Amino acid sequence: MKDVLLYEGKAKKVYQAKGKQNQLVLAYKNDATAFNGEKKSSFNGKGRLNNEISSKIFNLLHEAGVETHFIDRLSETEQLVYQTEIIPLEVVVRNVAAGSITKRLGIEEKTPFHPPLVELFFKDDELGDPLINDQHALFLSSITQDELQEIKDKALEINQHLTRIFQCIGITLVDFKLEFGRLTDGSIVLADEVSPDTCRLWDINTSEKLDKDVFRQGIGDLIQVYEEILDRLEEKV
Amino acid sequence: MKDVLLYEGKAKKVYQAKGKQNQLVLAYKNDATAFNGEKKSSFNGKGRLNNEISSKIFNLLHEAGVETHFIDRLSETEQLVYQTEIIPLEVVVRNVAAGSITKRLGIEEKTPFHPPLVELFFKDDELGDPLINDQHALFLSSITQDELQEIKDKALEINQHLTRIFQCIGITLVDFKLEFGRLTDGSIVLADEVSPDTCRLWDINTSEKLDKDVFRQGIGDLIQVYEEILDRLEEKV
Repeated sequence: MKDVLLYEGKAKKVYQAKGKQNQLVLAYKNDATAFNGEKKSSFNGKGRLNNEISSKIFNLLHEAGVETHFIDRLSETEQLVYQTEIIPLEVVVRNVAAGSITKRLGIEEKTPFHPPLVELFFKDDELGDPLINDQHALFLSSITQDELQEIKDKALEINQHLTRIFQCIGITLVDFKLEFGRLTDGSIVLADEVSPDTCRLWDINTSEKLDKDVFRQGIGDLIQVYEEILDRLEEKV
Repeated sequence: MKDVLLYEGKAKKVYQAKGKQNQLVLAYKNDATAFNGEKKSSFNGKGRLNNEISSKIFNLLHEAGVETHFIDRLSETEQLVYQTEIIPLEVVVRNVAAGSITKRLGIEEKTPFHPPLVELFFKDDELGDPLINDQHALFLSSITQDELQEIKDKALEINQHLTRIFQCIGITLVDFKLEFGRLTDGSIVLADEVSPDTCRLWDINTSEKLDKDVFRQGIGDLIQVYEEILDRLEEKV
C-alpha cells in the first residue's frame, strides 16, 4: 500500500501521507542533476545521505527556533513534512563568491560578502530559474512585500544558524539555496531540503569541496563527501 | 582644433570641452547597435535626431525640476554636458512588458506593470550587462544604500514626467533605460541620453513602434520614426 505520488522532482518524490491530512512524505532519490538538468547521474546511497543530513539539519534549526515543514524522518530515504504551497522562489544566500555569480558578475571565487548576499531566482525550469529582483518576486508570486521581507530576513537568520552549525564541524558555509512554503494556516516556513545538494560546503582548513560541486565539476566521489558531511554532523553536533 | 576625445561608445563620442573645466561635449553618432553589439548599422541623420530629441527632453526635465548633466545643444550632433563619474548601472523603468523581460520571465508583451518596475543592470559589455539586485549594485559600484534609493526614486519621478511628456504627443512610454552620474560636488544627476535609442515608444492609437525596435526587429525605417518623434515633440510640447 503506497502513498499517492503527487509530484516527482529532480531529487525527490512527493507523496500524500496516508491518513494524515496536510502532511506529505518526501522520498529522496539517488539521482543527481546539474546545470538545470543538463548533467545527470545516479549515486547509490545519495537519497539516504541527503535524507539523513537534511533531517539532522532541520532538527538543529528547530532547536534554534526556526520553523520548517519538517516533522520526522520516517525511513532511510523518507521524511514526513507538513504540506505547504511552495512559493516559486529560490532564495540563495552567499557568504563567499562561488558558482554562477563568479561568471555572471565577474566576481572572483572566494571573494567574501559582508553582509551576505541574498539572491532571488524565479523557480521555473523552462525559463532556467532566472535571477529576479524584489519587484519581480512580488509580480510573479502571491506573496506580499512584508512576506518577501520576512523570507529574506529568515534566510539571513538561517544563514547565521547554518554557518555556526557547519563551523562546528570544520566547514565553511559558502552559499546555499532555500525554498519556502505556506502552511495551511497561511504562515511561511522553510521547506524543501538543506543538504550538500543545496549548499556549497568547503573544508575550513583544506578548502576541499564537500558538496554537489564534486559532481558538477567531476572532481571527486559524491558519496564519499556526503558521507563525510553526515559523519561530521553525527560526531560533533 | 578639435576637442580631446576621451571615450567612444556605441552611440556617442565623448570629448573634453575646450577651456571649460568639468564639461564635456557629447557627439551623437549615426551608428545603431542592438543585442549587445551583435547587430550593427548606420543611419544618416540618426545622430542629429537623437541629439535634438535628447536635448529637448533634457530641457523639459529641467523645467520639471529634474537635475541632469545637460547644459546646452551646441550643434546638429553635439551637446555640452557636465562631466560626471558614470555610475555603472543601467536603470530600466518598465510601464508595460516588452523586450527582454518577456523572454526572461515569460511575461506576455503589453502586460502592464502597476507600479512600474525598476530593474538594475550592471553596465559591463563583457558580461552582457547582466540584471542585478540592489545588493549586487552596492557591491559592484561605489554608491551607498541611500544613493541607490535616491537613484530608484529619481528614475520613477523621471518616469512620471516622461510618461506625461510622451502622452501629450500621443505616445505610450513603454520602458526606458537611464544612466546616472556623479558631479564633481558629489551629487548624482541623470546623465547619458533620453532618446528613441533608450526608450520604447508606442503610438497610443495604433501601437506602432516608434523607437529602436524598428531596427532591432527590422520592421520599419529608423530615420522616419525618429523624425516622427522629433516632429511631434516640436509641434506639441
